[in-house]
Amino acid sequence: MILDGKKVANLRNEQLKAKIKTNNLKLTTAIILVGDNPASLSYVNGKLRACKKVGIEARLIKLDESITKDELTNEINKLNEDKSVDGILLQLPLPNHLVGKHFINLINPKKDIDGFTTINQGKLFQEIETIPPATPQGIMNLIDHYNINLEGMDVLVIGRSQIVGLPVAKMILDRNATVTVCHLKSKDWQIYSKNADLIVVAAGHPKLLTADLVKEGVIVVDVGINRVDGKIVGDVDFEAVAKKAKYISPVPKGIGPMTINALLENVYKVKMEGN
Amino acid sequence: MILDGKKVANLRNEQLKAKIKTNNLKLTTAIILVGDNPASLSYVNGKLRACKKVGIEARLIKLDESITKDELTNEINKLNEDKSVDGILLQLPLPNHLVGKHFINLINPKKDIDGFTTINQGKLFQEIETIPPATPQGIMNLIDHYNINLEGMDVLVIGRSQIVGLPVAKMILDRNATVTVCHLKSKDWQIYSKNADLIVVAAGHPKLLTADLVKEGVIVVDVGINRVDGKIVGDVDFEAVAKKAKYISPVPKGIGPMTINALLENVYKVKMEGN
Repeated sequence: MILDGKKVANLRNEQLKAKIKTNNLKLTTAIILVGDNPASLSYVNGKLRACKKVGIEARLIKLDESITKDELTNEINKLNEDKSVDGILLQLPLPNHLVGKHFINLINPKKDIDGFTTINQGKLFQEIETIPPATPQGIMNLIDHYNINLEGMDVLVIGRSQIVGLPVAKMILDRNATVTVCHLKSKDWQIYSKNADLIVVAAGHPKLLTADLVKEGVIVVDVGINRVDGKIVGDVDFEAVAKKAKYISPVPKGIGPMTINALLENVYKVKMEGN
Repeated sequence: MILDGKKVANLRNEQLKAKIKTNNLKLTTAIILVGDNPASLSYVNGKLRACKKVGIEARLIKLDESITKDELTNEINKLNEDKSVDGILLQLPLPNHLVGKHFINLINPKKDIDGFTTINQGKLFQEIETIPPATPQGIMNLIDHYNINLEGMDVLVIGRSQIVGLPVAKMILDRNATVTVCHLKSKDWQIYSKNADLIVVAAGHPKLLTADLVKEGVIVVDVGINRVDGKIVGDVDFEAVAKKAKYISPVPKGIGPMTINALLENVYKVKMEGN
């Protein structure tokens, strides 16, 4: 059975749109893009379109690649202080002379709709209500839509990034699953994948997870976004693994739209909580 | 082979004492104890003695169990502002009418020698230089003393508390091991323990880890502190597991003294970094 991220995200987006309209809310988010990285540009355009669709005003702040640290700091400070701006998103990666982590942490945590600031990630770690990072939250929303109960499950998370692997591992652990995190330096991670009830793959390697590495009835969430021969593919050998899986999320139309939806819901969340 | 926490902690304490003396440093930490919980009192006394031994001035702030939220808030604020106080430790647990997490987060993160504030735990999560929580840091110091290379190891962490299990899992993951976290709700965690190269047990259950559940040559770190028949024991069936283990930490004289040492080193660290 397909974990239909596209469908679930559309459903949630419609609900969000209705809430915004019914309550006559004015939601505004700023999206900062530094430079002309084509992948970033494409992600940002996707976010702008999604905002528009649900009735969120999105302001694109496009900055030149040569911007100085002080100038970028000023831009973020202006948006922090601007009461008409509810959410702020700084598209990563930044050009080499700017350290992403530093500038992310200049964002007012109450406007941090990506949930990437240190304080917001610390809250996630400590189980304090926070603005969740969008991809992990999107994964949880998809799992919940299909009423998958994670308690007691053996779960493998492949990848340990701060924006996907680590936070989703924590969220899944909070649902009382046993969670293993593996990565490039892991030896014999296949021992874990063959035993896992649920596998979240966020490694960025096409066809990393093949059918011989999973058990019958596994649930697979594919977070990979790879460009192969001009096509977008995930990290899973989808056709073959799908034959053994109870549930599997496709790429595209899986976690991608769920991530965007979670981001939009975060704009709503920060608005409701005030800043 | 015994992971001799007592010996390693003594060694590190001596080094710390020499550094403090040589540089003629005046280090001061405040320890806040609310109420008369006998276990807390015993922990606090141990910390006070340890501070004295290495030349750190420790001020015990003993507060009545009936203290109000405002009063405790004021006490913490006073210590935050007191330039003669380098470190602040709030002994947990607090009486039921006070929420530990809330008061911990009132401590100036630069004086947070337990490393428990949300911002400091967020930094740990994001691999930003921080004040590490003492028990996990003590575990890492002990492992490092014996030159144990964790890269590629299969590691099981039993227990998922915010002060031991979760942060130590993150620290071990940062050393490029594959890390599994299991807990009370885990099914079949023995599959993991039998495969693990290193097991950290922080569950609070005497004899939870028995010899049949580990492989030959395993490394075992026992963080348990349980009182059984008037004696302090860990979570591991020590005698039997020691026969199969390559390295094993005892209780007492294992992680306990390493924790205290890490705490003392944190006072030095916050002093050096200024506040």
